[in-house]
Amino acid sequence: MSGKYRYFLTIEYIGTEYSGSQIQPNGKTIQGEIENAIETITKQKIKIRLSGRTDRGVHARGQKSHFDIDQKININRFIYSLNSILPNDISIKEIKEVEKPLHAQKSAKYKFYRYVIFNAKQRSAFMGQALHISDKLDVEAMNEAIKSLEGVHDFSAFKRSRSTNPAVECTIFKAECSACQDYIYIDLIGNRFLYNMVRIIVGTLIEIGRHQKDQKYLMEVLQSKDRNLAGKTVVPDGLTLMYVGYDNKYNEYIGG
Amino acid sequence: MSGKYRYFLTIEYIGTEYSGSQIQPNGKTIQGEIENAIETITKQKIKIRLSGRTDRGVHARGQKSHFDIDQKININRFIYSLNSILPNDISIKEIKEVEKPLHAQKSAKYKFYRYVIFNAKQRSAFMGQALHISDKLDVEAMNEAIKSLEGVHDFSAFKRSRSTNPAVECTIFKAECSACQDYIYIDLIGNRFLYNMVRIIVGTLIEIGRHQKDQKYLMEVLQSKDRNLAGKTVVPDGLTLMYVGYDNKYNEYIGG
Repeated sequence: MSGKYRYFLTIEYIGTEYSGSQIQPNGKTIQGEIENAIETITKQKIKIRLSGRTDRGVHARGQKSHFDIDQKININRFIYSLNSILPNDISIKEIKEVEKPLHAQKSAKYKFYRYVIFNAKQRSAFMGQALHISDKLDVEAMNEAIKSLEGVHDFSAFKRSRSTNPAVECTIFKAECSACQDYIYIDLIGNRFLYNMVRIIVGTLIEIGRHQKDQKYLMEVLQSKDRNLAGKTVVPDGLTLMYVGYDNKYNEYIGG
Repeated sequence: MSGKYRYFLTIEYIGTEYSGSQIQPNGKTIQGEIENAIETITKQKIKIRLSGRTDRGVHARGQKSHFDIDQKININRFIYSLNSILPNDISIKEIKEVEKPLHAQKSAKYKFYRYVIFNAKQRSAFMGQALHISDKLDVEAMNEAIKSLEGVHDFSAFKRSRSTNPAVECTIFKAECSACQDYIYIDLIGNRFLYNMVRIIVGTLIEIGRHQKDQKYLMEVLQSKDRNLAGKTVVPDGLTLMYVGYDNKYNEYIGG
């Protein structure tokens, strides 16, 4: 990527209709839609760089991305034009000019993922981006369990078995389970996440919420490093990338 | 309709993908989807009766409907089966056995409609069922204006011009405009509503919110009985039937 000026985008999307965030040979992607819209406006083929990929069907409220361009843009007019062109399930919240070398992917310090469960007897047409579970879950037990993930750990047990990336250590700055009305929020803030990690953690927590496993089970699975002991990978429908952080808020954890 | 037992359904739907609530020769309808699901379960062709029609693209959180059937149903199992069969944008919240002659349409005493405006600089992929307006609206002025609709009035000015129904008097029990974060809620509770009435009232209120008209304008339009003076009919996207009431809560207004 060349281009004199660098702009950061904050992007929201409902991932349901997309094959994921990053460009790929087949299927509609978030990156593809945004690059097409930028091309329509600028008449230039410009590549955008995302903070990281989100899987097929995963949503984002605060995905970050940057692109470089040779001319200064009129930010207000650019956001307005992008949101006029983009489909309803993708929107641009903010654009900011930044100084290189700030980089959407390489400079990211932490990510905040939220998984939402709609925990009510009946599903609802209005439950939004959530997984419906009829059985009442024990949120307190789930919260006590998830706390054990905070800190620096080898997360091999919560990694998709087909994934071959040898880097399996992640730092979890905050892990929390809370409830509000019929919703349960499972929040994880970490420096990085392995493939399907949040969805496998949630699958295991649901077993604890149902009292099929006790509160210590999550820690035991973590220590075992054995994917077979963890729960199922839940569907992507309830997962949202809430925020990507570029500040040093969580420095104390990583000795920075 | 025959059938020994009568059941009332509370129905939620996102109307975006439907040609309206009531069965019609072409296009998917809410009534059609529910009748098909009931037929799948009972192996009987059973007609359901809605409290009233909602237009193409209008949503509902508390639509009511009834049907009659010769056998008692297992309510919990029936709701569960319906929600398994119905598409994600329709859900059944509740089923109750009632005594005839209670009738979803004829016994309805009031309806609560809410129109939602997402009043923020940029639209959002997560704004839900709402109309996006960028210009900051004056909610206080809109609330003062809408209050003038409370009571018994001839609503000819807020009726679709092609509509030929001669009954133009409606009783509005409550009319209110409120704001919460980026959302504006326009709430109307009335004994009946004319064709497109809420959407034309909202179109006129938006002109007041933009200070293109003053607060007294809504009352002036009402008294003129002239559709040409009222604002545009806004899109159905922001309109939701919140509730249908069968009790006598608003009796004082109608001398009941």
